[in-house]
Amino acid sequence: MGTIRLYDRDRIDNVIRLDTNLIAVIEAAFSNLSTKKVTMPPIMRIDVPENNGEVDIKSAYIEGLDTFAVKLSSGFFNNPQLGLPSANGMMILLSAITGEPKAIFADNGLLTDLRTAAAGTVASKYLSRKDSRVVGVIGTGSQARYQLESLVNIRPIDKVYVYGRTKENMVKYQKEMEEKLGLAVELSKSAKNVVENSDIVVTTTPSTDPIIHADWLHSGIHITAMGSDAEHKQELDTKVLEKADLFVCDVLEQSLRLGELRTCANEKVKEATVELGEITTGMKAGRLSDDQITVCDLTGTGVQDTAIARYAYQLMEYKEADDREGS
Amino acid sequence: MGTIRLYDRDRIDNVIRLDTNLIAVIEAAFSNLSTKKVTMPPIMRIDVPENNGEVDIKSAYIEGLDTFAVKLSSGFFNNPQLGLPSANGMMILLSAITGEPKAIFADNGLLTDLRTAAAGTVASKYLSRKDSRVVGVIGTGSQARYQLESLVNIRPIDKVYVYGRTKENMVKYQKEMEEKLGLAVELSKSAKNVVENSDIVVTTTPSTDPIIHADWLHSGIHITAMGSDAEHKQELDTKVLEKADLFVCDVLEQSLRLGELRTCANEKVKEATVELGEITTGMKAGRLSDDQITVCDLTGTGVQDTAIARYAYQLMEYKEADDREGS
Repeated sequence: MGTIRLYDRDRIDNVIRLDTNLIAVIEAAFSNLSTKKVTMPPIMRIDVPENNGEVDIKSAYIEGLDTFAVKLSSGFFNNPQLGLPSANGMMILLSAITGEPKAIFADNGLLTDLRTAAAGTVASKYLSRKDSRVVGVIGTGSQARYQLESLVNIRPIDKVYVYGRTKENMVKYQKEMEEKLGLAVELSKSAKNVVENSDIVVTTTPSTDPIIHADWLHSGIHITAMGSDAEHKQELDTKVLEKADLFVCDVLEQSLRLGELRTCANEKVKEATVELGEITTGMKAGRLSDDQITVCDLTGTGVQDTAIARYAYQLMEYKEADDREGS
Repeated sequence: MGTIRLYDRDRIDNVIRLDTNLIAVIEAAFSNLSTKKVTMPPIMRIDVPENNGEVDIKSAYIEGLDTFAVKLSSGFFNNPQLGLPSANGMMILLSAITGEPKAIFADNGLLTDLRTAAAGTVASKYLSRKDSRVVGVIGTGSQARYQLESLVNIRPIDKVYVYGRTKENMVKYQKEMEEKLGLAVELSKSAKNVVENSDIVVTTTPSTDPIIHADWLHSGIHITAMGSDAEHKQELDTKVLEKADLFVCDVLEQSLRLGELRTCANEKVKEATVELGEITTGMKAGRLSDDQITVCDLTGTGVQDTAIARYAYQLMEYKEADDREGS
C-alpha cells in the first residue's frame, strides 16, 4: 500500500481558493451527474441522540475517474456549550483502480463549505440575470460568507443585503464582507426586505419553517436555497416553487426527500423540475429571459465531494512539487 | 479540533495481540449488541464494476460509549494482477461526544481480520465442547490463520486438519501454523474429511456454493461459518442448519440477507435462531450437552469494528505513554 497523506485544515486552506477554477470543477461535477454513470449510494446516517449529534457519510463514484471520495460530516449541537464548533468533517480519497486510500483531508468541513458555495455559483451562473448586481443573503453563518465570496467571481455584484436572527451577527457579517470583498453590505430588517431588493437571493439557514414567501418575489429574481438537506428542514414556502418559471435542483430524488420539494404537493412542479446538471450540459435550458423567476434547491451531493477532493489532491501535488523545486 | 492520529498497519500490528484480552473485548461487543441501544445503519456499498471492485462502509454507535468507529473496507479483485492484495481498509475513530475524528487506523484490514477471528473464538467458547482438541479449517487464507491463532486461546487444540483449493496453499499453511503455534497440521483431501475428523470446524472461504453438507456432521461438532457476508455467498448447505441442535448468528437480519439463513426456507430454523449476544449475556443458552451439533454464522458487524478500534486506540495511548516514560 502506498503512503496515505493526511492533510489538516490549515494546509488545505493554504492551497485551495474559491475561484473560477473551483467553480468550473464543481460545474463539471454536475455535468457528470447527468451524463456519466454515477454510483451514489444513499447517505449513511449515524445518530447519537444523547449528545445531540449525528454523522452523515456520503460517497460517489463517477465512471472512468481514477479516484473517488468518501465524506464524513458531523453535527454535534451541544459543542458550542463546550466552546467547539458544531460541525466536523473529513474526506477520504480512494483509488478507484485498487481501492487504496490515497489521502485524508481532515478539513473540518472546509471542502464541503467550498463545494457548496461553488454549487450555488454554478446555479446562479445559469439561472440569475447576467447583470445581477445586488445579492441578498439570508443567514449569517459560514455559508452566508462563502456563497457571496464565490458569487462575485461570476456576476458584477456591488451591493449586498443581509438578514439574520441577531443584529450582532449581521454587523459582524457586514464588517467582514465589506473588508474582504470591498462591497457595500446593508443590514435588512426582514427576509422580505432582502428579497424585494435583490437580483439574487441565497438562503443559508437551517430553518424548519419557510422563510421566503411567494408574494415577495419580483420579476427577474433568482433564489438559491441551500439550507434544506434533511427531512425536517425547509426554507421556501411551496408557493415559491409554484410561482417560479423554472425550478431546478441538484438531485431530484434528494430534493423530494430532503429538500424543498419534500413539502410540495403540486405534481406539475415536480414533473417540471430540472436537475442542474441537465442545464450545465446544455440538455435543458437555464434562464431564458430577464423577467423569469428562477429557483434552485441544493441538498448537496457526493459527486461534488468527489470533485473537490480530487481537485484538492491535485493542488496538493502541485504544491508539494513546487516546494521540492524551491527547496 | 484536537490532533488526529494516523496509525499505519505496522504500528498497529506492533501493539495489538490476538489474545484473551481482545477476545473479551469482542465478547463484550456482542453483549452490547443484545443489551444496549445500538445504532447500526445498513452497510453502505459503492461498486466500481469496471475495476472489479467494491467499497463497504460500516459503522455502529453503542449508547453510552464516548467513541465509535466508521470502517471502510474494499475488495478490488484485479489487484492480484497488479501485484497488490485485493483487500484494503481503514477505520476512523470518532468522538461520540463532539463528533471530532480522533484517530485513523490505516490498518489495511488488520483490525477486521483480528475482530473476525476473535468473534469466531467467542462463538466456539460458548458453542464448542470444552474438550475440543481437533480443529478443522476450510480455506487457506488470512482468516484460516487468524481463526486458528485465536482459538488456541480458549481450547486445548493439538491437531488441525486443513482443506483448501490448492496443495501449494495447504502446504504453506501447514508450515506456517506448525511453526507459529506448535500444532500438528494435517492436509485433508476433502472438506468432508475435515468435517468428519474435527471437533470444531471453521469455514473461511468466499464460496458461492455449499461446501459443507449435513450428512457429514457427527454428534458434538461445532461449526463456525465466517465466509458468507454477501448476497451471493454460501458455505453451508441449508440442511446443515436444519440438522443443528442450535443455530446461532451474529445479527439475525444480516444472516437472513447476507449469511447462511439467506437460502434457508425452513421457518422453524429461522424462528429458533439465536443471536450470539443473547448467549454471551446469558439470556439464552449455548451448548447444553456434549452431543449437540452447533452452528454459528458470522457476517460481521459494525459493533465489533467499534469495539476493536476503541481497544486499539487505548493500546496506542498506553504505548505512547510508555514510550514517553522510557525516553
